[in-house]
Amino acid sequence: MLHAIIMAGGAGTRFWPASRVSLPKQLLPLAGSGTLLEDTVARLEGLVPPERILVVTAERLLPAVRRQLPHVPESGLVGEPCKRDTAPCIGLAALLVLRRDPEATMAVMPSDHVIAPAEAFRMAIRAAESLVDAAPGRLVTFGIRPTYPAEGFGYIQCGAALPAATAGPGSVTACRVDRFKEKPPASVAREYLAAGNYLWNSGIFVWRASTIVEALAREQPECLAHLERIAAAWDGPDRDAVFAREFAAIKGISIDYAVLERAADVAVIEAPFGWDDLGGWSAVARQRGGDAEGNTIVGRHVGIGTTNSIVRSDDGHLVVTIGLDDLLVVHTPDATLVATRAREEQVRQAVAELEKRGWSEFL
Amino acid sequence: MLHAIIMAGGAGTRFWPASRVSLPKQLLPLAGSGTLLEDTVARLEGLVPPERILVVTAERLLPAVRRQLPHVPESGLVGEPCKRDTAPCIGLAALLVLRRDPEATMAVMPSDHVIAPAEAFRMAIRAAESLVDAAPGRLVTFGIRPTYPAEGFGYIQCGAALPAATAGPGSVTACRVDRFKEKPPASVAREYLAAGNYLWNSGIFVWRASTIVEALAREQPECLAHLERIAAAWDGPDRDAVFAREFAAIKGISIDYAVLERAADVAVIEAPFGWDDLGGWSAVARQRGGDAEGNTIVGRHVGIGTTNSIVRSDDGHLVVTIGLDDLLVVHTPDATLVATRAREEQVRQAVAELEKRGWSEFL
Repeated sequence: MLHAIIMAGGAGTRFWPASRVSLPKQLLPLAGSGTLLEDTVARLEGLVPPERILVVTAERLLPAVRRQLPHVPESGLVGEPCKRDTAPCIGLAALLVLRRDPEATMAVMPSDHVIAPAEAFRMAIRAAESLVDAAPGRLVTFGIRPTYPAEGFGYIQCGAALPAATAGPGSVTACRVDRFKEKPPASVAREYLAAGNYLWNSGIFVWRASTIVEALAREQPECLAHLERIAAAWDGPDRDAVFAREFAAIKGISIDYAVLERAADVAVIEAPFGWDDLGGWSAVARQRGGDAEGNTIVGRHVGIGTTNSIVRSDDGHLVVTIGLDDLLVVHTPDATLVATRAREEQVRQAVAELEKRGWSEFL
Repeated sequence: MLHAIIMAGGAGTRFWPASRVSLPKQLLPLAGSGTLLEDTVARLEGLVPPERILVVTAERLLPAVRRQLPHVPESGLVGEPCKRDTAPCIGLAALLVLRRDPEATMAVMPSDHVIAPAEAFRMAIRAAESLVDAAPGRLVTFGIRPTYPAEGFGYIQCGAALPAATAGPGSVTACRVDRFKEKPPASVAREYLAAGNYLWNSGIFVWRASTIVEALAREQPECLAHLERIAAAWDGPDRDAVFAREFAAIKGISIDYAVLERAADVAVIEAPFGWDDLGGWSAVARQRGGDAEGNTIVGRHVGIGTTNSIVRSDDGHLVVTIGLDDLLVVHTPDATLVATRAREEQVRQAVAELEKRGWSEFL
């Protein structure tokens, strides 16, 4: 049976002040109809029932995640006591799923991407499932056809084509993965784009839970040993203590580096759906679209001579802009950001400055 | 004896969203140590005791004025039921003062200007008093030496010099007023500046209360008749009703147009104090001064690559600015303005738009 593992532990400051330590990107309604996490779960409707969804988040985010996902059973929410990258997260999820279903196939996905239409996503996951059914030891990943020579993504070099996998009304293109490539410099990214057989690594995977546990046993035996102690204590009175102790003892490592780059049979499906990792406010504006002046507005706003700007406000707070071009204004109840769009990435510096000043109430 | 009349009924939208219908410019701490009104009253210390201060404001502003001026007796606060320009305001103040002191000299002043140092202001008022004592029918006004060809001020053309009036340690330059000039176009303003004998009209006046009442009797008998009915009812049970009815029946007119431009003996003292009518945020920034990057900051702020900008926040709200030059950011609990400084005057258009949309809670 198919189980969904949603990775929802991400932090980050790109969307500050809308995002905070206690309210990261995936818990915000940035694009789509709900928060990114809500939309991620909604996208599974008809593919995976709520009782087979496992959301792995940070312990401190559990209350907010619980509020956003009232229909996911409490047993489907896992709060990591500390951050240890994707391999420990996925390995633990695999062990927990295996306790209920030794034959489980798991679809692993981030919680903070925009993906549409949902039906194309479900069709692609079903196609991946059939690729795994055809070769149970296979790891399937999803690649995104590049639209520009991005330096911020990992790339997948595609090799020999696999038989077209069909699922329901659709079909997808699949091939073997020749190599995974780290985030490249611009010149290399341009080569990848020109070559035509490179895809962006989306971080969405489908495989048997048993396959990934076997791979971890081979590649990361220490990590797996810690995870198995956690899984063994899961239903006992010491779960929290064991989880905290053992998880903290694991060395953080990504599933790509720990397993995928070393695995023998990895396939990639070219995503038949629209995908955006929402790297910043400009991506949000792209998703939402602009008005006649090129502005993307959320909340109460009056603009005079304002063009190509992003204005976001909440709680009925009014923002008036006059004579602005290419500006970003984000208002929240306790903090407001005003930045030129070209420099929005420098919000990290501002957040670092807040830490330095000890203004932790704004983080 | 000297009485001070403070005109504090002004409205206006230049400082929106910091200023509102219920909290206009004079009630805001824009420059100086308190609000402009508080500073205006503090400036009178040692010159006029609180019981001889009369603050004429709008009825709806009385509670706020009372809060800001706890040491001014209740009898010193007058709330106009509607707006009728300066002549009715000053005429009524004169009648009220005359009931207590038939020999009263009154110093009339706006409540929303920045004036410093206070001692120079007090010295100038004492000098004006001595000019009036020397010629009790005389009207004395204060002129500001122009520093640029301003189109936004009225001008005073100076005539024959009067004997230098001295008061305490200082002395001032005084002359007869040849003519009052309306706000001029730029070319005329340049001529005035070059001629050297034109001063800006400050709206600060000193005269006997009886003199201004006589002048109104001559020039605006209808207006005075209404005001006398109000004064007659002042201590009776019908004060509010009579005030509302009679004041509404007056035609609004400025004291300059009603009296000063037609009076025989008007003198002007060149202000020996620094003066700014705070026409907008840039004037506020000029008064407060800037930091090394040319920024004027009030409230909690972190700036990255921000220059020549004005940032104002309140209630501990944090404003972060990145990559801004020559921008104005004003945050208040329910509304925020972001504007290029060159276009700050267009805030009026924005306020008009709010009215049009019926968003009266922000006015």
